[in-house]
Amino acid sequence: MLKIALDAMGGDNAPGMVLEAIQKACQIHPTTEFILFGDERLIGPQLSQMPSQLKKAVEFIPTTEVIGPDVKPSAAVRGYRNSSMYRAIKSVVDGQAQGVVSAGNTGAYMALSMLNFKTVASISRPAIATLIPTMKGASVMLDLGANVSCDAGNLVQFAVMGSVFAKFVLGLQKPSIGLLNIGSEDLKGHDVIKEAARILKEADNLNFVGFVEGDDIAKGTVDVIVTDGFTGNVALKTAEGVARMFATFMRQSFESSWLTKLGYLLARKPFLELKQRLDPRLHDGAIFIGLNHVAIKSHGGTDGVGFANAIGVAINTLQNQLNRHIVAELNRFTEMNDIIGVSS
Amino acid sequence: MLKIALDAMGGDNAPGMVLEAIQKACQIHPTTEFILFGDERLIGPQLSQMPSQLKKAVEFIPTTEVIGPDVKPSAAVRGYRNSSMYRAIKSVVDGQAQGVVSAGNTGAYMALSMLNFKTVASISRPAIATLIPTMKGASVMLDLGANVSCDAGNLVQFAVMGSVFAKFVLGLQKPSIGLLNIGSEDLKGHDVIKEAARILKEADNLNFVGFVEGDDIAKGTVDVIVTDGFTGNVALKTAEGVARMFATFMRQSFESSWLTKLGYLLARKPFLELKQRLDPRLHDGAIFIGLNHVAIKSHGGTDGVGFANAIGVAINTLQNQLNRHIVAELNRFTEMNDIIGVSS
Repeated sequence: MLKIALDAMGGDNAPGMVLEAIQKACQIHPTTEFILFGDERLIGPQLSQMPSQLKKAVEFIPTTEVIGPDVKPSAAVRGYRNSSMYRAIKSVVDGQAQGVVSAGNTGAYMALSMLNFKTVASISRPAIATLIPTMKGASVMLDLGANVSCDAGNLVQFAVMGSVFAKFVLGLQKPSIGLLNIGSEDLKGHDVIKEAARILKEADNLNFVGFVEGDDIAKGTVDVIVTDGFTGNVALKTAEGVARMFATFMRQSFESSWLTKLGYLLARKPFLELKQRLDPRLHDGAIFIGLNHVAIKSHGGTDGVGFANAIGVAINTLQNQLNRHIVAELNRFTEMNDIIGVSS
Repeated sequence: MLKIALDAMGGDNAPGMVLEAIQKACQIHPTTEFILFGDERLIGPQLSQMPSQLKKAVEFIPTTEVIGPDVKPSAAVRGYRNSSMYRAIKSVVDGQAQGVVSAGNTGAYMALSMLNFKTVASISRPAIATLIPTMKGASVMLDLGANVSCDAGNLVQFAVMGSVFAKFVLGLQKPSIGLLNIGSEDLKGHDVIKEAARILKEADNLNFVGFVEGDDIAKGTVDVIVTDGFTGNVALKTAEGVARMFATFMRQSFESSWLTKLGYLLARKPFLELKQRLDPRLHDGAIFIGLNHVAIKSHGGTDGVGFANAIGVAINTLQNQLNRHIVAELNRFTEMNDIIGVSS
């Protein structure tokens, strides 16, 4: 029986969307239970209207503080002891829940998760990893913003963690790994990624294919795209922006006249399928990978569908025992490095 | 009367697409002349079949070497003295042409252009700048790959150059400028962009609006997006990849059944307009900004339409006397900095 802690106050549409998400999640994962942390005045009335069988799956713990979007990570870790986010994280440390999901302030959430969960032994920095839709299906991408700058060792560890994540979430035997660069030739890029590539090339247990470029992300050239948090965050948000632009232009095109509206009626089936396939809400749920417990970040602007998907990622991650596999893989990697004399 | 030097051997589809581009460019810019550098065996026969009035506009100079896509910049600057790319650049230095266009090896082209054209006084590093389509129209983005890492002074100079470029190419009075970051709050990002932001905030003659994020690129939040060459290159290529993915999915959707094909017949008008509006070939032509002469880079995989557009960018840049305006703006900026005591 899994129990997931939910920060009901994080995100633009909280707490309404969190309660909506619980209802959806309970249908898909009927054996999972939830502990909900948030403002009683806002949540109490909505909670009381829930069907009684749902209520049974939800334990509500009132909290009085909220870590807003403008709170600095440094401030978040010093105070806010009765905030929904802190209490949700703490409930995992205390063994009341196995994982936590929040759509709140990313920097604060990462800082509090790191401080309370600690990094997996031999991991120096956790990363933010997520699935992104591609021409071929989906790829794992990390880091998406936890580490503004990275050294070669960080990138190598991200590659190992991303590979394990892709194995279990995408069901791949030996996920291909690419390092994001500005050219596929070995001579391109800065020293940190060249050094990371050198180490990864010698790792027999990883399927490292070399450097990939920005357009390889959507192409699905590799299963795991590894990059520093600055580049990864910019690339992911750039992709989201272009996707939104296309979606808007497509809608405008179909709505531009009665003729195009009629055209849409005829052509809508594959377009609705396409819309669903690329729906960002169905890719909601980034994992703070490299920590001893499962912390999932839902998109700040998400709704009930997206947050429910993020809950699904938490459940999936726990059921697959991702952390145990990461530790095992890192140990294998470290042993291999000891043998070939490479320090990561 | 303008004369443009063309590297006929650069790019995947050279020299055929260059000759095709000349024909298109001559129609749009009837008073412009061209000097074409390339392999006589490949170009001679095609050139002789051109209409005689076109031939008049084209001077052909045979060259024997080609700087291929795998040639390192360091090797390109040491040899290749009879290559089409080097000779085209040299013809500008010698005053035979006013600007050069190539779709060849970017690194070699930038290195040769820097070495032969030199940077504009007070510019420490040139950048690669281009127009990108957005929800609102188009924005200028730089650097797209000339400088893998940048200091704050580089980014400030890119902002000044990008602003001048946007003024003349987009016809804006006071283009808004944003620094690409992983959050819009002042506390986010690394020290280099924080320092650049601090300097830009004090520059009264620039319309600096602060940090922007990846999704602001497609939104068109600012007229000029400033970033280092690594991030800019990844972001631009990521955007291109997502755009291509959407274009493919849209085509597949319309082609999936006779019903959707019929739907397309009815709805095609705005979709064809959209296709044209986002056609990457119509945004082909990146400028090596900050050099004493005009060097335009066309996309390596471009065709005649794209290369003709890049020729148009060269002509436009020369007619607008972009370099003269950049020098004037930089001087103003330097004076202002002397007054407020900021070193860029």
